[in-house]
Amino acid sequence: MSTDSAPPAGATVADRLRDLGIALPDVPPLPMAPNRAVVVLHGDLGYVSGVGPIGVRGALGDDMTVDEGYEAARTAALFCLKRLEETLGDLDRIGRWVKVLGFVRSAPGFDQQPTVLNGFSDLIVSVWGDAGRAARSAIGTSDLPLNMPVEVEAIIAVR
Amino acid sequence: MSTDSAPPAGATVADRLRDLGIALPDVPPLPMAPNRAVVVLHGDLGYVSGVGPIGVRGALGDDMTVDEGYEAARTAALFCLKRLEETLGDLDRIGRWVKVLGFVRSAPGFDQQPTVLNGFSDLIVSVWGDAGRAARSAIGTSDLPLNMPVEVEAIIAVR
Amino acid sequence: MSTDSAPPAGATVADRLRDLGIALPDVPPLPMAPNRAVVVLHGDLGYVSGVGPIGVRGALGDDMTVDEGYEAARTAALFCLKRLEETLGDLDRIGRWVKVLGFVRSAPGFDQQPTVLNGFSDLIVSVWGDAGRAARSAIGTSDLPLNMPVEVEAIIAVR
Repeated sequence: MSTDSAPPAGATVADRLRDLGIALPDVPPLPMAPNRAVVVLHGDLGYVSGVGPIGVRGALGDDMTVDEGYEAARTAALFCLKRLEETLGDLDRIGRWVKVLGFVRSAPGFDQQPTVLNGFSDLIVSVWGDAGRAARSAIGTSDLPLNMPVEVEAIIAVR
Repeated sequence: MSTDSAPPAGATVADRLRDLGIALPDVPPLPMAPNRAVVVLHGDLGYVSGVGPIGVRGALGDDMTVDEGYEAARTAALFCLKRLEETLGDLDRIGRWVKVLGFVRSAPGFDQQPTVLNGFSDLIVSVWGDAGRAARSAIGTSDLPLNMPVEVEAIIAVR
Repeated sequence: MSTDSAPPAGATVADRLRDLGIALPDVPPLPMAPNRAVVVLHGDLGYVSGVGPIGVRGALGDDMTVDEGYEAARTAALFCLKRLEETLGDLDRIGRWVKVLGFVRSAPGFDQQPTVLNGFSDLIVSVWGDAGRAARSAIGTSDLPLNMPVEVEAIIAVR
């Protein structure tokens, strides 16, 4: 989970993902919401719809461990990047991660939502370095769409 | 639920609502929060407080069907528009719906929050067309104020 | 809970806090999230990470009364101000509170989340007056980090 190393100066996001051995996965379609956009650009900000690890079902403190939740949040980040690549054309357009709001499906009493969401934040920071360190809220909830364990939305600065 | 038809060019929001046979309902007062604003304008964005179908109580997967939840989300949209009309003076000032964050009160295991929130999004897109297609997150939760089944907040572009 | 009195013209936030007899408390460290920022500045807005009354545990409608929840939300506001003072250097840089999103840990059926979050909003308005009256959403949830009863995030206008 180390995220200390900053991306080398001049490296593109594609370079950085290759160095990290990360290939962005295809995102399963989410058929239930035709009237929303993946991302809306306004000014130099992009507002990104909530995304989760589609196909993964479970709840923290019930049938998922913290490590499994961390992986699910990392998958949410990869799906988020894939969608943004398709929509923006080029992930280098993302200059900064401004804000992240993450929800973790939790059994009663589970209280380590921040650790779970580090799976999202650590991945982003491993690619963008300090520019990936967003303001963030970590919230527990009883239910999420498709019984996914995690859903994360974001605001990004776009150039 | 069809939302394919775009609003005709040059039509005002008032025209469009009339064509759709929609009259904005009066919004019951929400007395519990004197120190919040209905909408705060900053730059060319408006940040809109959470609004629900005040007076409707229930939870999806318990005492409400998905269709009833859809109607409740649509009512939340109508209340939201009525409040914005009162505050902005004219709904034509809303140029774009940028971001929507919706919460659906859910019994354990209910996982169709996006379908419920389509009641909000479909209404907005039926009036604003593509400019109503916001980035959106659909989140389940166990509890909402006044036991309402839905609460939705939004960011709008204002001119 | 009276918040009618506006801050006197020309008073600094420090003056105002002194007049109200408020000393900002030290904030216990939150070790679980190294890869997030307390606040990210972008343009003239600051996006503030979720903050709660660290050390206070409980749920409304279960082991906490509404008055205790109100106090917990007020503590969250004080912690939020302390963090912003440390990060921004000077609370007078906050010109306006634009948006507040608050979550209240709730036992099933608890429905007075707005009254609980007034503990946050009333404190902010007692210091900033009308400029503290943000757009706000009050959401119930079953679980929060560290079993805190409240978590609040905010968007502020910074100069």
